[in-house]
Amino acid sequence: MIKVAILGAGNVATHLYQTFTEVENLEVIQVYNRNPAHLAFVNEPEKRISQIKDLKKADLYVLALTDEVIETFANQLPKLEGLVTHTSGSASMNILKKFTNYGVFYPLQTFSKEKELNFKEIPICIEASSGKNLMLLKKTASALSNRVYEIDSQQRKSLHLAAVFVNNFSNHLFALSAAYCEKQKVPFEILKPLITETINKLDKLSPLQAQTGPAKRNDSKTIQAHKEMLDDNGKKIYTILTESIQKLHGKKL
Amino acid sequence: MIKVAILGAGNVATHLYQTFTEVENLEVIQVYNRNPAHLAFVNEPEKRISQIKDLKKADLYVLALTDEVIETFANQLPKLEGLVTHTSGSASMNILKKFTNYGVFYPLQTFSKEKELNFKEIPICIEASSGKNLMLLKKTASALSNRVYEIDSQQRKSLHLAAVFVNNFSNHLFALSAAYCEKQKVPFEILKPLITETINKLDKLSPLQAQTGPAKRNDSKTIQAHKEMLDDNGKKIYTILTESIQKLHGKKL
Repeated sequence: MIKVAILGAGNVATHLYQTFTEVENLEVIQVYNRNPAHLAFVNEPEKRISQIKDLKKADLYVLALTDEVIETFANQLPKLEGLVTHTSGSASMNILKKFTNYGVFYPLQTFSKEKELNFKEIPICIEASSGKNLMLLKKTASALSNRVYEIDSQQRKSLHLAAVFVNNFSNHLFALSAAYCEKQKVPFEILKPLITETINKLDKLSPLQAQTGPAKRNDSKTIQAHKEMLDDNGKKIYTILTESIQKLHGKKL
Repeated sequence: MIKVAILGAGNVATHLYQTFTEVENLEVIQVYNRNPAHLAFVNEPEKRISQIKDLKKADLYVLALTDEVIETFANQLPKLEGLVTHTSGSASMNILKKFTNYGVFYPLQTFSKEKELNFKEIPICIEASSGKNLMLLKKTASALSNRVYEIDSQQRKSLHLAAVFVNNFSNHLFALSAAYCEKQKVPFEILKPLITETINKLDKLSPLQAQTGPAKRNDSKTIQAHKEMLDDNGKKIYTILTESIQKLHGKKL
């Protein structure tokens, strides 16, 4: 039985808690957050702790915290014997090097509290300070997911940046479209099959091959008409992405 | 039996030809393209035509052409009795008003020749110059798809612009990410479940609710680090989309 303590109460901590509790051979023994009111998602009240001094001995400590606070928080922790990890895509493993055993447990996914996830399909990127620690992380990650990758800090940073483009930025394009549709009184719903197909295409084609639209076709009349329909922010985004598509596809600007 | 003539040989023409031929009560009687070499996708050689004068009488003429050439091409056509339509998202219906019966048959989807599609799920936006013409388009569209919408030219333009954001631009973000991953020697494949979840989330949450990431969290340290990892083009896109997310989520810039 691998004993796990989770430190944090955000989206990642909540999802990890739920998944860890569903898996055999793993036990979440404690969840820490400074503010006990944020620990309501932990089913057993006796496992909720709000003081570092109450932290028990665990095999694995998972610091599911925002990037900015991991290092400061780690420095407040006592010497721990177990393996101490963070879940950040962009923070280096070495910010945990004050511990004897340290590593990274980075689930590459977008977590919202309101949306359940199938962890089996979520890539988990692991990195550890020793072979023994890596084994423990591999065992833990494999209990959760079918997609476990050994990824070093530099590669993880690259992946995280790429993830911002594919998830955060494309989701924002959806949000801008939804706002625009609402303003123009057309249902955003009509666009859903197109959004689905945008993704499905990637099973057969590379995104380079899958590209269509006025920028790719160099259809300057439509491009001009579109720009005139947008507000300043929309126009700036439209212009820069159109130019970027034309650049990638070798069109003269 | 509705007799259909398709004019064009591009992605949309090819997909429409394939779908029309699979549907009962519809018959594609001819496919026109100036260049006969481009008509190889038409199974029956006798249906391929490369001269306007060979055009036979049809109930429905579908001009599946790029926006720029529709009007010029229409002006070269003789007086036709049947219903003449175009498939463009952004061109007005009125560019076909020289005909007695005219309309729009706009399938809102991204078409690549290499990728098959299930037409049943593709929204088809129709508009016509008379009630009778609308009936014919509704009958034709309903034979192909479960999602048929009456949409006027102005709404269609708005939808088309929104479609550029959700499809063309997000696909380009995927292309930039894939190129970046290749350069950094990390497999783009690892990001696929994230891309899938980006879309799946929209079944439960609005894109506004689904937003996550450093821009939303106002994590300026990660944002700064990311910018330093990108080339000029990537940095410009990162900056403008990050600012746009922060604006939409009411963060101070």
